[in-house]
Amino acid sequence: MASITPLILVGGAGKRLWPLSRESMPKQFVPLLGTQSTYQQTLQRVADSGLFSRPIVATSDAYRFMAEQQAREIGTDVEILVEPMRRDSALAIAAGAAYAAKRGAEAVLALASDHLVIGADEFRAGCREGLEVSRRGGIATFGIPPTEPKTDYGYIRPAGEKIGTALKVAAFVEKPNAQTALRYIAEGLLWNSGNFLFPPRLLLAELARFEPAIAQSAEAAIRDSRTAGNAIFLDKAAFEASPAKSIDYALMERTDKCWVIPARFRWSDLGTWDALLDVGDADSAGNVTDGPVELDHVRNSYIRSDGPLTAVIGVEEVVVVAMGDAVLVGHRSNLPRLKDVVERMTKGKHRAATEHAVMHRPWGSYQDIDRGERFRAKRLSVNPGGKLSLQSHSRRAEHWVVVRGIAEVVLDGTISTLHENESIYIPMGGIHRLMNPGKEQLEVVEVQTGDYLEEDDIVRYEDVYARV
Amino acid sequence: MASITPLILVGGAGKRLWPLSRESMPKQFVPLLGTQSTYQQTLQRVADSGLFSRPIVATSDAYRFMAEQQAREIGTDVEILVEPMRRDSALAIAAGAAYAAKRGAEAVLALASDHLVIGADEFRAGCREGLEVSRRGGIATFGIPPTEPKTDYGYIRPAGEKIGTALKVAAFVEKPNAQTALRYIAEGLLWNSGNFLFPPRLLLAELARFEPAIAQSAEAAIRDSRTAGNAIFLDKAAFEASPAKSIDYALMERTDKCWVIPARFRWSDLGTWDALLDVGDADSAGNVTDGPVELDHVRNSYIRSDGPLTAVIGVEEVVVVAMGDAVLVGHRSNLPRLKDVVERMTKGKHRAATEHAVMHRPWGSYQDIDRGERFRAKRLSVNPGGKLSLQSHSRRAEHWVVVRGIAEVVLDGTISTLHENESIYIPMGGIHRLMNPGKEQLEVVEVQTGDYLEEDDIVRYEDVYARV
Repeated sequence: MASITPLILVGGAGKRLWPLSRESMPKQFVPLLGTQSTYQQTLQRVADSGLFSRPIVATSDAYRFMAEQQAREIGTDVEILVEPMRRDSALAIAAGAAYAAKRGAEAVLALASDHLVIGADEFRAGCREGLEVSRRGGIATFGIPPTEPKTDYGYIRPAGEKIGTALKVAAFVEKPNAQTALRYIAEGLLWNSGNFLFPPRLLLAELARFEPAIAQSAEAAIRDSRTAGNAIFLDKAAFEASPAKSIDYALMERTDKCWVIPARFRWSDLGTWDALLDVGDADSAGNVTDGPVELDHVRNSYIRSDGPLTAVIGVEEVVVVAMGDAVLVGHRSNLPRLKDVVERMTKGKHRAATEHAVMHRPWGSYQDIDRGERFRAKRLSVNPGGKLSLQSHSRRAEHWVVVRGIAEVVLDGTISTLHENESIYIPMGGIHRLMNPGKEQLEVVEVQTGDYLEEDDIVRYEDVYARV
Repeated sequence: MASITPLILVGGAGKRLWPLSRESMPKQFVPLLGTQSTYQQTLQRVADSGLFSRPIVATSDAYRFMAEQQAREIGTDVEILVEPMRRDSALAIAAGAAYAAKRGAEAVLALASDHLVIGADEFRAGCREGLEVSRRGGIATFGIPPTEPKTDYGYIRPAGEKIGTALKVAAFVEKPNAQTALRYIAEGLLWNSGNFLFPPRLLLAELARFEPAIAQSAEAAIRDSRTAGNAIFLDKAAFEASPAKSIDYALMERTDKCWVIPARFRWSDLGTWDALLDVGDADSAGNVTDGPVELDHVRNSYIRSDGPLTAVIGVEEVVVVAMGDAVLVGHRSNLPRLKDVVERMTKGKHRAATEHAVMHRPWGSYQDIDRGERFRAKRLSVNPGGKLSLQSHSRRAEHWVVVRGIAEVVLDGTISTLHENESIYIPMGGIHRLMNPGKEQLEVVEVQTGDYLEEDDIVRYEDVYARV
């Protein structure tokens, strides 16, 4: 039987990777490297059913459908712990541990969903070592041998005692300045990757010693949870009762049961665009490129386009990320300022500061393709089995043209089936629903006309995703 | 009666202002500054009917509809000399002179369509001085008092003789190196702006002395031209017989009849993006911005977005131009390389290297708004009175939704009138035509489905623009 239960943590907004990462679809769901998101790559990493059991994903209501859909896309079955609010990592991991314990898990592997790991075999070998630590009553953490004196990571100081290659932790230390970081490297300290493996009951017991309120909240959040399908909605009152602390601060820096496994895989937290330059395959001028880009006299730069033809001439040490609706140009040394800049653009009410062109919904996604004075055109993409709510609009009519797949349309009580190249007209006020009864994706071009064309002109009569 | 006949020269592709300027719609037709194109601004500059008569526009077949439409947009009536091929400026100006002479013009003002002039009164005052020069048997050229030692302009050396403020030209000199340019400024030389005012018969007579083949070709091209509406199609054989030389090389550097008027207006040839930084209103950090951009620690840069939300952080002396389908990032000192880069991208078959998202047609314009495996969506914008060809497609069907204005549709011999929020289906093989019978713009969202969706799947049966 599989011994390790993965607990995938799907958290924040990832503003430091704007414009690819935005609040509407943060970095863990975006294909930063290759065709899969880091969340999907994380799930793939724990897909070995001899070692890992079905993953638990901890996320918020805003991201649960995306977490489910992206797991389904790669054929992975997950359980989703829906956090009623953000309360930092200690509570999220503790609630995951409590749920895994209830499920009878021997060991839990808490993994960030937005990290990059290169070396799947080495990763699994590390997990096996962590399992051995946990069987001997320890909490294992993965330490990364530093390659440069980073000042934005915490470090771990190992002591002499060993279990296999795992070393007893002497101390977790805070982010250092540059000089201290150099000393840490010389002294053999490791980067703290923030990924842990532990027996769930041990973690809860240790947490109960240092942060009893968090441990109690975690147990209560699971005890009073509500289950719907594969989603477990954690109790809101329990969450509200908990302090918000990071797992490092709440537990790791205080327990004496920690062991660190020096990682033999390559790792990055993909915290800034600079990380993509570090992990990518650079050309002879030190550039990493992706997409339709043309460089001329460019050095040590990361140039990426997810669509627009992008010409870059005569610059060094820059990051350029071009999308159809948003562009970033930044000097590498100033990238830490990106978060503030995105916050400023958000305050400036720029839609693209927080929203992607493609908006995800439980039934699939849509994107604006055109907009004018009294009209708006969208492409709707409906997953197999997906079903929009039964709805009506008071100020717009809609024309639907099916361009791929099969649509089942309800209009004022009448059901029609539409194939590719067929269309239907939804008059203003008509009560309608769109479904995909087929096995392939349904794509519909929707042309709306009217004097008000925003999302809030909608009356929902029924919704399989409980949004009525 | 108006004394000066403007001859507006609408030429090349303007690769140095990519991506705003592209082969499908070069810089003179693009609103570089403000809401009008420089071509329209040039027409406005000669709209004083007391001084200027109806303008003649010399251009190629590729741009004649755009030249006509943009003139109509600002209520200007033009005649268009359609050049059968590009044969450099000497022939274009000589043909324009021959046509103007035939029309009885006293003086011709040859103007580039892609220059910026600030100071309409000073410009007209200069033209009046040029008219005086031409009445006294001279060719007047506008010389720009240099503001910096430019190495990419030719210079004009004035002599002492005067007509008003016009100075006899001692010599036209080639583009200097930086040191020579400094000396030229000290010696009182002026930039050659390439705009001239002359009696048409005098220009042709002088040209006949130095380049008789060009002068003869120009006369023959007009004599054997064909007129259709306001377009005069110049004779191809005559053009083919002519050498291709610039007017400076063919005539100005050789004639002794040239006078230079020191310009009192501000002028730029808008030759590179740097020019936009020179003529724009810079903020306290030396930046000129346009569109939805957010800057942070940026200096002496030109940042422009025609759509995408654009964040620029920590760079200096750069040009960033962002459009939905193309992006330029360049250091100012390397901008002369842009032309080569655009040529490389053109060879690389990148559509956006040469074509804009909006494609202009005699009846209006269209743009792709979405594209998938077996479908393509466009927005068609049809001018009042505009009429697409009577056509059919063998591999696609089309759905049209009128989103603005009134459409008259012919489908297999049946005429229908469609208003906003009405739609029609054009089956594969259906013989159809779309017209705008109204007084406002007609906008149609077109959804094509089929297995081949390119422009060349078209049979044209009739076309009011003679494209059958």
